[in-house]
Amino acid sequence: MELKNNERIDDLQWKDLKIIQNINGFRFGIDAVLLANFAKGMKRSDFVVDLCTGTGIIPILLSGKTNAKKIAGVEIQEEYADMARRSVLLNGIEDRIEIIHKDLNLLNREIRPGTVDSVTVNPPYKKKGSGIMNEVDALTVARHEIYCTLEDVIKEASRILKTNGSFYMVHRPERLVDIFCLMRQYHIEPKRIKFVYPSVGKVANIVLIEGTKNGGVFLKFEKPLYVYDENGNYTNELYEFEGK
Amino acid sequence: MELKNNERIDDLQWKDLKIIQNINGFRFGIDAVLLANFAKGMKRSDFVVDLCTGTGIIPILLSGKTNAKKIAGVEIQEEYADMARRSVLLNGIEDRIEIIHKDLNLLNREIRPGTVDSVTVNPPYKKKGSGIMNEVDALTVARHEIYCTLEDVIKEASRILKTNGSFYMVHRPERLVDIFCLMRQYHIEPKRIKFVYPSVGKVANIVLIEGTKNGGVFLKFEKPLYVYDENGNYTNELYEFEGK
Repeated sequence: MELKNNERIDDLQWKDLKIIQNINGFRFGIDAVLLANFAKGMKRSDFVVDLCTGTGIIPILLSGKTNAKKIAGVEIQEEYADMARRSVLLNGIEDRIEIIHKDLNLLNREIRPGTVDSVTVNPPYKKKGSGIMNEVDALTVARHEIYCTLEDVIKEASRILKTNGSFYMVHRPERLVDIFCLMRQYHIEPKRIKFVYPSVGKVANIVLIEGTKNGGVFLKFEKPLYVYDENGNYTNELYEFEGK
Repeated sequence: MELKNNERIDDLQWKDLKIIQNINGFRFGIDAVLLANFAKGMKRSDFVVDLCTGTGIIPILLSGKTNAKKIAGVEIQEEYADMARRSVLLNGIEDRIEIIHKDLNLLNREIRPGTVDSVTVNPPYKKKGSGIMNEVDALTVARHEIYCTLEDVIKEASRILKTNGSFYMVHRPERLVDIFCLMRQYHIEPKRIKFVYPSVGKVANIVLIEGTKNGGVFLKFEKPLYVYDENGNYTNELYEFEGK
């Protein structure tokens, strides 16, 4: 596998899966790993679409965590779509994963309405114009709502999901009002939620949400997940959540 | 102070405040105490309205926790409004607390639009028809959305609040989607949220929410509150939250 400038291969420590990342670019964090584990209940026959896939981390993890037969990753940035495609080849899972280099607002021809069983997404967290945003480089695009807003993501998920299809998203707790209101507006009812805390007594910094297309109203709160224990080590419950 | 059948006087363990409760009726729980402490930032000059006031527990606690000059408690059930009035007299705080015996949907004459600084509410948690609901007795009314729905509460709070006025509510986490969407619909933006857990590692069972009438979009998550420690005793942080 040929690597480009500043790229390296990282071991995902799961079923020998690997990923190509640019050491100066956006690299996956715990959010992506948490989302893949939160979503791993999906079925063998499922057609899964990962929006804002970046380096393809979530499709690659889901290929090892689930039996989903077909997983498409959608990425707007050429550089990341290219890395993701090479990672798929590197892992030899090109029969299950397809990377689509496209703006998620323009998927009409690639993905028909109501055809997808599950959508996963780890979208840019920050509103356009918030925080430090000097240049519109690849890293900024991955973090800010430059090319897609939260509404774009939820609207497109709703379009492609089957009735009763599942939507899995990881995001920041402070966006929760927007998330709930947009999900309901686009007929994806929030059904399951899990807050992730850095440690006991700290403020939650990650939220995992599952919604159901055209689902009935009932939100189930899961036990919170604490990432670090009082000694700064990963908690046992984090390992359990990851299935390790 | 004359007590009626099955009534007793309970000590609130705060500035010698007391409350009359019916031993067979709805008695206040930790929810009301948490809400009074969550809302205690209100100012001296504030006009406060407590909707669904029941026995008047929240106005009575707020009279001791804040300097709010005027607190009105609204209660639809005659029996509870009467108990609340007698508790106000018992505490000698009738110059600060007025109990209004009225359906909160019919407050047009009692409370003018846009005149209230803060609204507090510990509404019935359960949807009408959910759970066990054999007879429509006073206890059922306190627990189920018989006479007022969540939408009624938020709509009326929005009507009476000044711009930038504060809305404080305690509720069950599983209603959070309804809560956020209704608050936004009625222009009360959720600004601050605190989850209450029975203990570390358990599922959150209470949520405290502050919203601002016509406020800007930003939701601040507070540190979670754990009620019991591993030995089944109240945690120090609970006492701190209560200001004890």
